[in-house]
Amino acid sequence: MFTRFKRLAAAAALLLAPAAQADGIIDNVNGITLDAKGAVVRFEALQIDPWGKVVALIAKGQKRPKKLVWRIDLKGATLVPGMIDAHGHFMGLGFQQLQLDLADTTSLDDALARIRDHAGRSPAKWILGRGWNQEKWQLGRFPTAAELDRAVSDRPAWLERVDGHAGWANSRALELAGITAATKDPAGGRIERDASGRPTGVLIDAATDLVAKVVPQPTPRERNAAFLAAQEKLLALGITATADMGTTIDDWETMRGMADIGQLRLRIMSYAHGVETALRVAGAGPTPWLYNDRLRMGGIKLYADGALGSRGAWLKADYADAPGNKGLGFLSDDQLLNLMARGAMDNFQLAVHAIGDRANQQVLDAIETLSDTYKGDRRWRIEHAQIIDPKDLPRFAKFGTIASMQPVHQTSDRAMAEARLGPDRLAGAYAWRSLLRDGSRLAFGSDYPVERPDPWAGWAASATRQDAQGNPPGGWRPEERLSREEGWAGFTIGAAYAGFAEDKFGRLAPGLWADFLILDRDPLVVSPAELRGTKVLETWVAGQRAWVAKK
Amino acid sequence: MFTRFKRLAAAAALLLAPAAQADGIIDNVNGITLDAKGAVVRFEALQIDPWGKVVALIAKGQKRPKKLVWRIDLKGATLVPGMIDAHGHFMGLGFQQLQLDLADTTSLDDALARIRDHAGRSPAKWILGRGWNQEKWQLGRFPTAAELDRAVSDRPAWLERVDGHAGWANSRALELAGITAATKDPAGGRIERDASGRPTGVLIDAATDLVAKVVPQPTPRERNAAFLAAQEKLLALGITATADMGTTIDDWETMRGMADIGQLRLRIMSYAHGVETALRVAGAGPTPWLYNDRLRMGGIKLYADGALGSRGAWLKADYADAPGNKGLGFLSDDQLLNLMARGAMDNFQLAVHAIGDRANQQVLDAIETLSDTYKGDRRWRIEHAQIIDPKDLPRFAKFGTIASMQPVHQTSDRAMAEARLGPDRLAGAYAWRSLLRDGSRLAFGSDYPVERPDPWAGWAASATRQDAQGNPPGGWRPEERLSREEGWAGFTIGAAYAGFAEDKFGRLAPGLWADFLILDRDPLVVSPAELRGTKVLETWVAGQRAWVAKK
Repeated sequence: MFTRFKRLAAAAALLLAPAAQADGIIDNVNGITLDAKGAVVRFEALQIDPWGKVVALIAKGQKRPKKLVWRIDLKGATLVPGMIDAHGHFMGLGFQQLQLDLADTTSLDDALARIRDHAGRSPAKWILGRGWNQEKWQLGRFPTAAELDRAVSDRPAWLERVDGHAGWANSRALELAGITAATKDPAGGRIERDASGRPTGVLIDAATDLVAKVVPQPTPRERNAAFLAAQEKLLALGITATADMGTTIDDWETMRGMADIGQLRLRIMSYAHGVETALRVAGAGPTPWLYNDRLRMGGIKLYADGALGSRGAWLKADYADAPGNKGLGFLSDDQLLNLMARGAMDNFQLAVHAIGDRANQQVLDAIETLSDTYKGDRRWRIEHAQIIDPKDLPRFAKFGTIASMQPVHQTSDRAMAEARLGPDRLAGAYAWRSLLRDGSRLAFGSDYPVERPDPWAGWAASATRQDAQGNPPGGWRPEERLSREEGWAGFTIGAAYAGFAEDKFGRLAPGLWADFLILDRDPLVVSPAELRGTKVLETWVAGQRAWVAKK
Repeated sequence: MFTRFKRLAAAAALLLAPAAQADGIIDNVNGITLDAKGAVVRFEALQIDPWGKVVALIAKGQKRPKKLVWRIDLKGATLVPGMIDAHGHFMGLGFQQLQLDLADTTSLDDALARIRDHAGRSPAKWILGRGWNQEKWQLGRFPTAAELDRAVSDRPAWLERVDGHAGWANSRALELAGITAATKDPAGGRIERDASGRPTGVLIDAATDLVAKVVPQPTPRERNAAFLAAQEKLLALGITATADMGTTIDDWETMRGMADIGQLRLRIMSYAHGVETALRVAGAGPTPWLYNDRLRMGGIKLYADGALGSRGAWLKADYADAPGNKGLGFLSDDQLLNLMARGAMDNFQLAVHAIGDRANQQVLDAIETLSDTYKGDRRWRIEHAQIIDPKDLPRFAKFGTIASMQPVHQTSDRAMAEARLGPDRLAGAYAWRSLLRDGSRLAFGSDYPVERPDPWAGWAASATRQDAQGNPPGGWRPEERLSREEGWAGFTIGAAYAGFAEDKFGRLAPGLWADFLILDRDPLVVSPAELRGTKVLETWVAGQRAWVAKK
């Protein structure tokens, strides 16, 4: 009588023997990757197994394995690991692709024309969109509901500011949301008002919920379409993995539903929208890695403050351009500690948005307190870590706190940052080098869809502190520039480490996933301007082509 | 240069060749199954492949395959397909295992003693439980909050009636829920009141939500424990697949989370708790079969009325024991049609609870209307189909409506049914044979945890119309009895068909899953009393042991 054990052994023997014979190689490449320590490794061919993992990096002159099942000759093209965006809003990016995008409007009138045109063509019950930025319009103030009424008044309209931290409603939307002069500012938010206290149309931070909760939910098909649009956009830019910073239950169901039918092609490190979502979705702790390391809810996203542009970032001293206003701390110290402890208790990773220096101090204080109780490899994350009091810079490394930052914010926002903070409080602003020098780890991203999820622009910005036009000449506070390799690490091994994924992806090495890109140039040798303009020719995930540029 | 195509072909060739050599057999069994048409097939051995599917039923005297990797000799034990419960509340069963169970209390005082004892030992902030039945207590009325206060008054207590359609609160619970004489009965529910209109402590149907919404939610660990408790209980009774009738988002996350870590051992056919849950969880249509056919959200559960015991079932004529009361229709005709259409539009299967004859008529009317638009293989389900006007009996078969019924309800409830309906309105009550005769399909279950999920009791009841004590002699309205094979079909092929799973499980046949039981007796030859007492020795799912009785 055979036992089940013999059955398993026999089956295993059948599977193991031919494995080495089923590999393939991508040959004849200008292959580059960082190793685990951040040193550059060059190779000529990449050997990949049937499961899509790297078997070996084959160096120049090294012999190729004999029994390969397939071989692709890339004739010297550049091959690098897939890029990772450590901070994005996946479904937000997707909806942005499907809705009205005001990101490149240059004035209020330009925006109104765009909105009027879109509303004229759209049958939707609500006109929805995002991307406006009154700084870009050089308006000097927030827009108003009355102005938006000129573009669309027959239906409610609700348009999110580019950073997601403010919203612009027309009169109909304010009416449906029940917002009047009598409506109080909710905790953690503000209703913009005229001198007599009447709402003028813009809502800041938590106040946006007043309208958001009456906006009809997207249908499942719209969610699926948004998912696919976001994925396509990221893959086309060479992003093979991303953190999703604030996954809701509905986001998660969409992601899983698409993954269940084989449509999840990149990797999503999900941070739940708050403690309750994590407990409802993931349960008693992080989920396992699902779909062959393509999806995991490993952490919780919290917010300590708002955004600089809408003066929601919480500062230690008044805004230079708004005396008496220090911004908004969203949580008391106790609230923040309680939320972070609740997550840490069940081994969730904590990722806390902190933009202003006071907010960053609050989170660093909380981490210091929590580290007495919650030991081990916690990898606390501060998201944005945008404006830091120089006194607080060394505190990141002290408890292993990762600074998850977005280089393109520095280049986009420098004029606005100077206006908000004045010339004397910029020492700890977008302080990449200082943080590295003090021993902190960096993880880079874009905060899409607040910015385009373009990692080449981000990488170039980290090396130059200059925008696409090369301004300012010499770079903004260039002492904070990173080397080409250090910037690359932020978008690869650093971002993977920040998601507890450094043994799975982020670099090309035996046993890690064959997630890689074929580029039109060598990003280590080209000029920064050329780096910024890098074109992705192909994006591969788990040893399969996930995206190919049109020829 | 090799192409990817050759790579795939080579890899496939390596996998295909040895497959037939990796099978095993369960040999020397008294094997019995129904075939797709419901005829009995007997076999002597079961050949199973490495994926856990049946390769062949080996008949008496037939040669065994030569190259087998394993063989188990069962020395003549009886082997049958796993049983399927077509209507249960999975997480409800789990929580019942963990909470106070009043199902076998025999009087009000017995229950109060049990509650007092449990509260004395429990640190919980709320005393929660279920299973009470004032009919069993022969109380003649509902219990009161004042009575419950005698058992626990320092904390809120909330106890669900056995059928889930009523709840019993103590004074503290009523207070926390804000229920006073001024509180109106909500739509679809009723607050039991004294002569001066003051709530007396029991809430019926939708009124239970008033308290349920202030009861603290279970923690993720409690949910996981409940999941495992429910699964263990079902597997121990020989249930290898079940429909979950009203899966909430939290239920789904728990099921998926446990399945993700390999802890889902049986098969769950999930019917979402209403349209909105289906759209949020499954999205634009049913989910695929997940985890190798272990989980799928394929349908939507709706409620047309309440329960007979609590007089929530909607009747065409007054309750015999409550003149002026016809029960509660939960939805207007339009509401029911809209909800069913919304589900059918996205190809969800509809399962509608209808207990009273008026409710059954309403649902049959809706199906008739919808069938003009929603054609194809819809497999509309009416859950319980308990009291049907004989005029309506043929309407089930007309549009392929499945009657999903629970045989043990008939044996448990006959005295109560006679009281509620009087002696002259029982012709279409629990009318199994009449429905079959008219060409309808049956799916059997237990409605656990309202009843124990014991399929052997259900099967025996379907054959005898008698309870465990053999009452009434000769059976209750015995013309509705089913044959031994017909009852078996209800718990196997009929239940699988009701879940669109007849090509996956429910019978043992080549290509279907090897879900089977080893029993201590042959259920086709033993007496009905012996059938009722069948013991499961082992439960196998997908060719692996999922549960083994203690020796």
